[in-house]
Amino acid sequence: MILVDRSLEEFSEILGSKSATPGGGSVSALAGALGADLISMVCRLSIGNDKYKDSENLLKESLEKAQILSKSLLKRVDLDSQAFNRVMAAFRMPKETEEEKKARSAEVQAGFKEAVQSPLAIASECLEVLHLAKNLIGTFNTNAMSDFGVAALQAHAGLEGSVMNVRINLPSIRDEQYVTETNNTVTHFVEEGSGIKNEVHAYVQQN
Amino acid sequence: MILVDRSLEEFSEILGSKSATPGGGSVSALAGALGADLISMVCRLSIGNDKYKDSENLLKESLEKAQILSKSLLKRVDLDSQAFNRVMAAFRMPKETEEEKKARSAEVQAGFKEAVQSPLAIASECLEVLHLAKNLIGTFNTNAMSDFGVAALQAHAGLEGSVMNVRINLPSIRDEQYVTETNNTVTHFVEEGSGIKNEVHAYVQQN
Repeated sequence: MILVDRSLEEFSEILGSKSATPGGGSVSALAGALGADLISMVCRLSIGNDKYKDSENLLKESLEKAQILSKSLLKRVDLDSQAFNRVMAAFRMPKETEEEKKARSAEVQAGFKEAVQSPLAIASECLEVLHLAKNLIGTFNTNAMSDFGVAALQAHAGLEGSVMNVRINLPSIRDEQYVTETNNTVTHFVEEGSGIKNEVHAYVQQN
Repeated sequence: MILVDRSLEEFSEILGSKSATPGGGSVSALAGALGADLISMVCRLSIGNDKYKDSENLLKESLEKAQILSKSLLKRVDLDSQAFNRVMAAFRMPKETEEEKKARSAEVQAGFKEAVQSPLAIASECLEVLHLAKNLIGTFNTNAMSDFGVAALQAHAGLEGSVMNVRINLPSIRDEQYVTETNNTVTHFVEEGSGIKNEVHAYVQQN
């Protein structure tokens, strides 16, 4: 059974179990998806209201993008656990002969790259959710102010959590250029995301 | 149907809808619960391992507390939406006669207090999850390092989100002493919670 078909209560129980998956990566993807959903909610509560007529196009575009991001991030709840399972399976491969050692090492490396690419994609999409929030400042129904604020908090927690997962797996990868580039990318993600989160937070507190 | 019986996918869809509930409050409670679950997972991956024998008692106590907090926070996913629905219902009460006005106003005030008490309880429990994390630093299986980090990120996002919900409802409450006291409480929560989150983050990055 895929994770997103589980009830909140079941997911909570599976998460708390001894199994290595689902773990922090899947939770970060879920946080990003729920952030995107709160952006959808904020847009829907504003679209069609005369007071926010001037931003109608932006609201509709943001709603569409938020729905796409939510769907993609929800898929990544399962994908991230699968990526990690691949690494675990690779470690269980035989390593008696030279050939087996080579095959195992290649599969471990491929698995770790996937275990980096997965949270990297989650981080990138969480950052997109944060950009949606940034662009919506001042354009929406202020009755949904705290939902808007929580959207940014969730997307930011998803971003930081997935960056942790990227950084924890990077030292296992031998391709130095890939490691350097990925490190630079996530550093940039974190800076940009934190800036937006602080901007949204200041806006929510002033309103 | 109660929210925690919904699948992740269904919850995501309901959240993104136009309905005012569930919103940021319920999502913050869920984030706290998932944070607690990740603490449970970290404890379970360490208990029984000779390497962490010295902290066996702390790990077992933390696991027990995390499980209780997760269950309580999951309940609050539904309770928070119900509290908000009470405010909405109060606003729909008749206000023709003086008596009706009085009854409506009393119910609105009672509703707002509940709409503050609910996220206040969520914030308090998220802070407890953060304390569990703080006490576990250096005592657990480092294979679960990023799960540990994400636990703190989730609990912190839940704390900040529920404090937003407290602060947004406080201006509607006429009981000044209650407002001042609650404001002081959440300011203290945020300071303490951010301190622990930063401490955990620094620890995860060094290891």
